[in-house]
Amino acid sequence: MDSDLTRTWRRMRPEPRLLHLDSAAAGRSSWAVLDAVTTHLRAEASDGGYVAAAAAAGTLDTARAHVLELLGWETGTVALVHSAHDALHRLLLGWGADLPVTVLHAAGEYGPNLAVLQELGVGSASVEDRHAGGRHTPDPAAFASAIARQRPDLVHLTALGSHVGTVQPVEEVVAVCHAAGVPVVVDAAQSFGHVDATTSADVVYGTSRKWLAGPRGAGFVAVRTGVAQRLGLSRDPEPREPQEASIAARVGFAAALAQHVDLGPAAVRAGLAARGRRTREQLAELPGWEVVEALDEASATVTLRPPAGVDPAGVRARLIAEDGIVTTAAGVERAPGEMTGPVLRVSPHLDATDADVDRLAAALARQG
Amino acid sequence: MDSDLTRTWRRMRPEPRLLHLDSAAAGRSSWAVLDAVTTHLRAEASDGGYVAAAAAAGTLDTARAHVLELLGWETGTVALVHSAHDALHRLLLGWGADLPVTVLHAAGEYGPNLAVLQELGVGSASVEDRHAGGRHTPDPAAFASAIARQRPDLVHLTALGSHVGTVQPVEEVVAVCHAAGVPVVVDAAQSFGHVDATTSADVVYGTSRKWLAGPRGAGFVAVRTGVAQRLGLSRDPEPREPQEASIAARVGFAAALAQHVDLGPAAVRAGLAARGRRTREQLAELPGWEVVEALDEASATVTLRPPAGVDPAGVRARLIAEDGIVTTAAGVERAPGEMTGPVLRVSPHLDATDADVDRLAAALARQG
Repeated sequence: MDSDLTRTWRRMRPEPRLLHLDSAAAGRSSWAVLDAVTTHLRAEASDGGYVAAAAAAGTLDTARAHVLELLGWETGTVALVHSAHDALHRLLLGWGADLPVTVLHAAGEYGPNLAVLQELGVGSASVEDRHAGGRHTPDPAAFASAIARQRPDLVHLTALGSHVGTVQPVEEVVAVCHAAGVPVVVDAAQSFGHVDATTSADVVYGTSRKWLAGPRGAGFVAVRTGVAQRLGLSRDPEPREPQEASIAARVGFAAALAQHVDLGPAAVRAGLAARGRRTREQLAELPGWEVVEALDEASATVTLRPPAGVDPAGVRARLIAEDGIVTTAAGVERAPGEMTGPVLRVSPHLDATDADVDRLAAALARQG
Repeated sequence: MDSDLTRTWRRMRPEPRLLHLDSAAAGRSSWAVLDAVTTHLRAEASDGGYVAAAAAAGTLDTARAHVLELLGWETGTVALVHSAHDALHRLLLGWGADLPVTVLHAAGEYGPNLAVLQELGVGSASVEDRHAGGRHTPDPAAFASAIARQRPDLVHLTALGSHVGTVQPVEEVVAVCHAAGVPVVVDAAQSFGHVDATTSADVVYGTSRKWLAGPRGAGFVAVRTGVAQRLGLSRDPEPREPQEASIAARVGFAAALAQHVDLGPAAVRAGLAARGRRTREQLAELPGWEVVEALDEASATVTLRPPAGVDPAGVRARLIAEDGIVTTAAGVERAPGEMTGPVLRVSPHLDATDADVDRLAAALARQG
């Protein structure tokens, strides 16, 4: 691991008051992000909200360009929205003349995404999961078979789950879908700024607050230019960017993107993968708890199946209250088609150390 | 006018860099609001976003109680949402088993609200406007006749328009609707914290950023407890509060509400009404421009019809660029059923002075 990057990342932000192993929930913002938000709010108070917004337009355009750069796209439109959840909602409402009728997804699809489909009356179907309870990796061939049986309007793929740190084979699934002429929408909320987000998918959406450690209340949806033909639509999807929003949060997101690009996305990625690998190695020795991912999975999202009879929600609460350690308890509602029980999610960022993870391991051992 | 309140209001917030006569667009936040937002963001960075959110729960509960207090309701549920626009969207989606089918509204209804109805496929009808081009006051009897002809699922009323500062007869319309058993939803985005917001309506929604001068990116929707019977619904509407949002903006909104309650809503109201009256008196003498409201209208939203051939959008831009004065140009899209041309909106808060309005008048005279 690049300890320079670790030190840099740590120095860029306030000292943690708690041991924060929860970047998959919300990363810790940097001083630059906090300053960007605060400076914008101050400008709103002295110049008026809309004068300040006009002055921030260039900053937000740069943010949009950074999103495209991280996706590896030469052209596309980027709408800044309230959150990843909001992004999916707006994407579907802006899909075309009508909502898509059917969406095909993996068995491990994020539960709240399925709820958005249901709320808007969009039908959805899951590909057969050949690896149920196994490695959490959907089989691209299963997408091909499912599409051949009943062609969906689009395939929705969550590039990295909320419930497991296994990187999904996005490009393989996209290849299969595009061969069949089916557009692919990727939920990059957990993957953006974390694992490689370059993709040939048609639409990608994500959030500010997780691995990029921008503020809460901002997200994006990116639509590749000219996908209408592939999508079989009369025009490219046009998710409406909300005019009334926290522009300060968007400006903070812009600062987080700029810092990420400046640090080097590849270096951040490598650092997070190394931290995830090391974390799993350390936690694999913990009696009773089972690491869900392959130990060398190239992500910093680490999930632990609890010992029999142990409730991760209770463990999470005690870790905060008694040990000052922040993690997430992920219930089956996060991936109702795949999870068989709740897990404890540990998601360190670059500033975490072996000693931090040892501290978590000791706390878990005490609880056990 | 209470000059103590004027001075207090001014001292509570940063010095304006521009002459801000634009509170109907976005008010200038106070130091306390800026500090509340910044402190929460700092807590997110040091404690983690969700630990910080849990710690803010009591503050947000107080904010909800303040909303109910300002509405004069003993009980009700308050969801904190992204904006007033978002509130209407969520309200309709959470209406009941199904969306409402038909909504009756005044001729002067806010255009973007009508767009939300259209986007969600909700039918809408306008009451006959007996005062077209006139005093912008819908006739409660016209609501009674329209309901008798074709009973809507609900009546939607914008208590104070974006395009004119004429306070709408909310309680009279509510009485007529309730007599016919029709529920009333009130858009209080422009009225909340500005004119009397106590109401016997069934649902009220509004925003943080305007007259309360809270941050952008927060709003509310309040549902009176037990209205399901009157609404003819199987349950009370349950607008879903977005879990992913700028909690910092909500905390800032809470601070703005607390300050408003502390200053005294009645005193703020009286001060704004006096400032609006005085502003209209000053601007009524301006050659070419015509004050739209009755001069003594009890609001601080002042609208001016331009001299023939003068475009308010251009005037607004020049006022900012050349005179450092912030106002709003309101196009007919703000009230497509009532406006016949664009207007210039002048919306001072308590800190504006006669000299400020004289400065605006001189700048407009120069432009003319």
